[in-house]
Amino acid sequence: MISVAVMGYGTVGSGVVEIIDKNKKKINEKAGDEVSVKYILDLRDFPGDPHQDKFIKDYKILVDDPEVDIVVEALGGIGTAYKFTKEALLAGKSVCTSNKAVVAEHGPELLKIAKENNCTYIFEASVGGGIPIIRPLHTSFTAEKIESITGILNGTTNYMLTKMDEENCDYDEVLKEAQAKGYAEQNPEADVCGYDACRKIAILTSLSCGKTVHYQDIRTEGITNIDKADFEYAKKLNSSIKLLGLSRMENGKCLCIVAPFMVNEKHPLSMVRGVFNAIMVKGNMVGDTLFYGQGAGKLATASAIVADIVDCAVNKGKTIECLWKDEDAILADDSEKYFSYFVRVKKNSFEEISKSLQAEKVLDSENDEIGFVSKKISEEEFLKIKDNYEAAIINYIRILDC
Amino acid sequence: MISVAVMGYGTVGSGVVEIIDKNKKKINEKAGDEVSVKYILDLRDFPGDPHQDKFIKDYKILVDDPEVDIVVEALGGIGTAYKFTKEALLAGKSVCTSNKAVVAEHGPELLKIAKENNCTYIFEASVGGGIPIIRPLHTSFTAEKIESITGILNGTTNYMLTKMDEENCDYDEVLKEAQAKGYAEQNPEADVCGYDACRKIAILTSLSCGKTVHYQDIRTEGITNIDKADFEYAKKLNSSIKLLGLSRMENGKCLCIVAPFMVNEKHPLSMVRGVFNAIMVKGNMVGDTLFYGQGAGKLATASAIVADIVDCAVNKGKTIECLWKDEDAILADDSEKYFSYFVRVKKNSFEEISKSLQAEKVLDSENDEIGFVSKKISEEEFLKIKDNYEAAIINYIRILDC
Repeated sequence: MISVAVMGYGTVGSGVVEIIDKNKKKINEKAGDEVSVKYILDLRDFPGDPHQDKFIKDYKILVDDPEVDIVVEALGGIGTAYKFTKEALLAGKSVCTSNKAVVAEHGPELLKIAKENNCTYIFEASVGGGIPIIRPLHTSFTAEKIESITGILNGTTNYMLTKMDEENCDYDEVLKEAQAKGYAEQNPEADVCGYDACRKIAILTSLSCGKTVHYQDIRTEGITNIDKADFEYAKKLNSSIKLLGLSRMENGKCLCIVAPFMVNEKHPLSMVRGVFNAIMVKGNMVGDTLFYGQGAGKLATASAIVADIVDCAVNKGKTIECLWKDEDAILADDSEKYFSYFVRVKKNSFEEISKSLQAEKVLDSENDEIGFVSKKISEEEFLKIKDNYEAAIINYIRILDC
Repeated sequence: MISVAVMGYGTVGSGVVEIIDKNKKKINEKAGDEVSVKYILDLRDFPGDPHQDKFIKDYKILVDDPEVDIVVEALGGIGTAYKFTKEALLAGKSVCTSNKAVVAEHGPELLKIAKENNCTYIFEASVGGGIPIIRPLHTSFTAEKIESITGILNGTTNYMLTKMDEENCDYDEVLKEAQAKGYAEQNPEADVCGYDACRKIAILTSLSCGKTVHYQDIRTEGITNIDKADFEYAKKLNSSIKLLGLSRMENGKCLCIVAPFMVNEKHPLSMVRGVFNAIMVKGNMVGDTLFYGQGAGKLATASAIVADIVDCAVNKGKTIECLWKDEDAILADDSEKYFSYFVRVKKNSFEEISKSLQAEKVLDSENDEIGFVSKKISEEEFLKIKDNYEAAIINYIRILDC
C-alpha cells in the first residue's frame, strides 16, 4: 500500500483525488501496489464530500505519520507551501507538486533535501500542465545536449493573443472576456506581464543546463502593449504574435528572455492557438522537437501529478535523480543577445530611426506611422536606440528566427 | 561499468556508438555508471574505424559473454534480428532497438521473454525516431485512458506530400526527387504504400490498449493515388493531405486505419511539414497532446536508443515494465468506422453518386469531373458504393475530424 496525503483541496488537489478514484485500476497496475489517499489537508470544510474521513486541518499529522509515503503539495503560494514541503521531505516523504513558484524559488534546495532523505521532489505539472516535458527532458533526452527551448508557456495570454489575431479585438476587450470566462484572474498581472511564463522558462532552463537560472534575472516583457495594429502588421509579415519564453544555451552561457515575438506562419509554434501551450526543445542530436497540449486545467494538471505519484511509488525508498544543481548558471548579457525587431515609429522620425536600426523591410505606412523590420542587432544596442527615441517609437516586437 | 554490444554497424548502429563517444560525460552521469561499448557485431570490415578492437563477426561471442549487460539490435530485417534478440534476452541481456518490423511482429513474445529473464526489451526509437513517444505513453500518461492516437508516422511520404502541396508537383516527379535526395528507397513501397506507418500505428495502439494489434489486420492505403488535382481541391477545403496512422479506442474496441486524410489548416497536424513526424495523443484526463520531431535520421534515432540504454543501465537486473500483453485486441469492423469522404467523380455520374453518398459540399468542377464532400458514413457503406461506381469515381480521400 502506498499512502498519499494531499495538501490543499482546491482545483488541483481535488483533481488528484478524483483521478486516483477514477483510474484506480491502471494506476495500481503501474505502481505495482495499491495507491490510496490517507489524508486531505485543508482548513476549509467540505460537507458532503465522499472523503470526509480523510480531512485534517493540522499538517503535523501527515508529517508525523510514518505510513505516509507521498505528499501532494497543492496549496499554492510560497510561504506555507515551501515550509510544509521542506518538512515532508525532511521526514523522508516524497513531494509531488504543480507549484511553479516554489520550484522556481527553492527548487535546488528542496531537491538536495530530498536526496539527503532518500525521497523525491518532483514537479512535472509545474510547467505545461498536462504536457509531458520535464520527464522527457530527464529520461528521453538523456543523450542530448539541449541547445534551446522556446515555449508558449502561458495559456491565458495565448488565448488572448489568438483572439486578438483571429477576431481583430482590442486588448482591453479580450482581457475582459478572458476574465469573464475564468481564463484570466481579476488581477491578471502574473499572466499578462509574463511573470508566470518567466518562472516556467527559469525551471526548464535550470533543468536543461543543470544549474540554477534565477527567474528574477530574466528580462520579462508582457503583452500589455500589444494592440490591434500590431496584428495588422504581423499579417503583412505572415506572422502571428506569441508570448514566448526562450532560452539558448551557447558557450556555457544561457540566453533567456520572456517577451512577445513575431512568429512566422511556417514555424510550428504559430499553430498553437487558444489556451494551448507548446514547448520546442532543440537537442544537439535529435534536432527540433515540440511538445503540445493543455497548459492548465484541473484534470490535465492533476494527471501529471498522479504520474509523478506513480513514479515515486515505483521508486519508494530512493531518490529519482534530477541533475539540477544548487549552483548559478551563467547568463548571457544584453550584448550577447541578437534579434531582429519589428518597430513602429512616427512618420517624421522614420528616416532617422530606421537608419539607426538598419531597416531591412519597410511595411506600408498606416495613419501617422511606419512599421519596419530591423537588421539583427544586439539587445544592448537596441535598448539604447529605443531609449534615445522613446517618444517616437510606438511599439516594438522581437522576431523569432524561423 | 555497463557493457554494451552493438549488433549492426550501419547508420543507426554507428550513430549509437558515435553518441556514446560524444556525450559520454552526460550519459555516464545519468546512468550512474560508465557506459562502454565492448563489441560491435558486423560481417563487414571497417578499415580505419577507431573501434577496430571491438568488431566481432560471431554473435555467439556477445551472447555468451556474461559481462555484456545491454545489446543494441540495429541489424534491420526480421529473421536474424529476431533470432539474435531472442537469444540475447534468454541470456538475460536487455535489448534496445529501433527495429519496428520485429517489434510489430514479435513484440509481446519478446517482452515476455525479457520479463522471465529479468531484463528489458525496449524500443523507443521504433516509432517516431527521436520523438519521445513510447516513454511518455508509459511514464507520463500513467493516469490516462488513451482515447485516440493520430500520427504522421512516415517522413518520406510527408516530405513528398508537402512538396506536392507547396510546389504543385506531380507524384512521379516528387518521388524521383525524394529518391535522389536519399529520402525514399529505390523500392519505395514500404513508405508510399503505408506499410511503415502501419507497423508504427500497430505498435502505438498495442502499447496504449495493452493488447496486441496485428499490423496485418489494419486497412492500409498509401499515397500512390494522390495527384496534383487532389491538392487543388484540398486548398478549396482549407486543408492539406497527410498520410495518417489513426486509432480510436472506444467501447473496448480499437478502430485502426492507415490512409491519406484531408487535414484542415486549423488542425495542429497540418503544420507538420517535410520529413517531420508528429503524433497526437488524446487522453481522458489530459485531452489533446502532440509530440513532434524528426521521425528518422541517424543521430535522432540513435539518441533515442541511447536513452533506452541508460534506462536499462539504471534498471540493471530488473525488467522495465511494459503493459503490452500477448493477447489480441478487438478491432472495430468497417461498419463501426465513420468518416466523411472527399470524392472526385466523373461529371455524368455526379448526380447519382453524390446522392448515394449524401454530398454535403460540392466543389467547383474541374475539367470533366466534380469534387464533393460526403456526409459521415460507415466505411462499410462507403466501400460498397465505391465498388458499385468504380469506373466513375476518380479518387477519394477521408477527412479528419477537426
